[in-house]
Amino acid sequence: MTRIIGLEQIKRALDPARVIQALEEGFVDYSEGRVIVPPVGHLCFKEPPGDCHIKYGYVSGAHHFVIKVATGFYRNPEAGLPSSNGLMLVFSRETGQPEAILLDEGWLTDTRTAAAGAIAAKYLGPRKPKRIGIVGTGTQARMQLDWLRYVTDCREAMVWGRDGEKAELLRRDMKDSGYFIGIAENIEELCARSDLIVTTTPSREPLIFAHHIRPGTHITAVGADGSGKQELDSSVFGRADICVVDSLTQCREYGDSSRALQDGVIPEERLIELGRLIRDSNLRRCDPGQITIADLTGVAVQDICIATLVLNSATAD
Amino acid sequence: MTRIIGLEQIKRALDPARVIQALEEGFVDYSEGRVIVPPVGHLCFKEPPGDCHIKYGYVSGAHHFVIKVATGFYRNPEAGLPSSNGLMLVFSRETGQPEAILLDEGWLTDTRTAAAGAIAAKYLGPRKPKRIGIVGTGTQARMQLDWLRYVTDCREAMVWGRDGEKAELLRRDMKDSGYFIGIAENIEELCARSDLIVTTTPSREPLIFAHHIRPGTHITAVGADGSGKQELDSSVFGRADICVVDSLTQCREYGDSSRALQDGVIPEERLIELGRLIRDSNLRRCDPGQITIADLTGVAVQDICIATLVLNSATAD
Repeated sequence: MTRIIGLEQIKRALDPARVIQALEEGFVDYSEGRVIVPPVGHLCFKEPPGDCHIKYGYVSGAHHFVIKVATGFYRNPEAGLPSSNGLMLVFSRETGQPEAILLDEGWLTDTRTAAAGAIAAKYLGPRKPKRIGIVGTGTQARMQLDWLRYVTDCREAMVWGRDGEKAELLRRDMKDSGYFIGIAENIEELCARSDLIVTTTPSREPLIFAHHIRPGTHITAVGADGSGKQELDSSVFGRADICVVDSLTQCREYGDSSRALQDGVIPEERLIELGRLIRDSNLRRCDPGQITIADLTGVAVQDICIATLVLNSATAD
Repeated sequence: MTRIIGLEQIKRALDPARVIQALEEGFVDYSEGRVIVPPVGHLCFKEPPGDCHIKYGYVSGAHHFVIKVATGFYRNPEAGLPSSNGLMLVFSRETGQPEAILLDEGWLTDTRTAAAGAIAAKYLGPRKPKRIGIVGTGTQARMQLDWLRYVTDCREAMVWGRDGEKAELLRRDMKDSGYFIGIAENIEELCARSDLIVTTTPSREPLIFAHHIRPGTHITAVGADGSGKQELDSSVFGRADICVVDSLTQCREYGDSSRALQDGVIPEERLIELGRLIRDSNLRRCDPGQITIADLTGVAVQDICIATLVLNSATAD
């Protein structure tokens, strides 16, 4: 019997500590070559514009394989609908039976992205951050902040977005979050006053340049998840001591680091996969003055791990 | 709200005449270039052996797109489970919302395959067949026979399979089907006494050769749905007056006709797509003595059409 698991049930099922643990194991599996992920399937629509991505695969030796469908239709908000949607399917790897359908409406993708940001901060960020800086004011801005609480005690935060009203709205929405949230006048102020920065925008132009960054800063960039997008100028990579990516294969194609490679600012050998960083403490920050970057484009193993965790955690309603 | 539609509800929803009409329109759309179908996604497993195919796409201008997941795990019967399973997802093409999940357990794939066989017989078969010959004794053998009732009044049938007991079981299972079913001693007898033949086996060696076939016979071959499979020897194509395929693109790669092309028995120009045959009556049988073939490998537009039809026909339970 195929289980149908709705969004509320999914939210109740997931314990943040277990999500972080499952994703860490997933990143290690990925970097050590134990994850089978065929090329992403894709449909593209015009009028109204939209697209659909199908990501799927499995961890070698695991009991399940996962298929994730994600859609983005950018005019939906005009009709009062969210622009993103989707679901995940979990199948038995032994029998091919569909074991569960997770009607998560895209929430699991947001969650695994935010959890990966927390993992990057845990392994690469300052030991005791003074202030968290969030660039962007959308869903991922809120969720990154929300998930950082599981890896740091820092509760000072600062937000910057192009639209000041949206930044104010984020502050209001998160007034009970336990964070003290300030609003930066501009990106320069955010970078000057924060040492654990997360960029979460769909920008197609670099927002942060090398001269913005102070020694000791860590930046996680999660916005550039497709070709043409960029949040960090190549010069930031030139100044960084450690450059981490979730997937070398993907980060050659897109993401901020692909620009740095194209511009010849850093050689590919400088990019370290997150899974290797989790496994090998010698690769991590060794001096509080170091500048570090994590460029996260989102990998299917995150979907595989979180979907499997939901299946194993959700109790019958 | 995503609708979850189970197998019993799906079976109640589908009217055979409407399925045939929808698939005919789909084959025409496909042959006239209005169907967008990216390459099939694929996962392959060892120990236990199995695979998963993801087919997806849409008809240009339609309101939905469809993703079909089909799994095959060939040791499942040892555990009392069917070897095939799967489901279909129907999304709005305007908003990307998942509108329905069809938990059909693979039944819709069997159904669209059988319905395509009926369509091939309708447009290419003898006007008044004397006897239907079914090669194979599995699910598709039963379903092809079942669906031919909608396109012919012939109720004389003959079955042959390698396993005589299974042939006997098919006859017993279908005793209330309205067909008078005989069992052939061998393939030669089946071919000699039938003029509307459907082959439904997973054979990897040709079963029917040119010298088996009488003038006036039509053969639909549905078994060779992947590389390495073959039911009709190339010589049958050499003797045929009309050779129809569901998809030229696929039938260049696999299916019985790909062997005939490789062996140089017929040139590719001799292959006519089913959608063209449906549209153009000049391409059909014009003499009762002609020998005709339909090589059906299964195309994603069939999945798209039948899933959309279920969504539009299923009433709330």
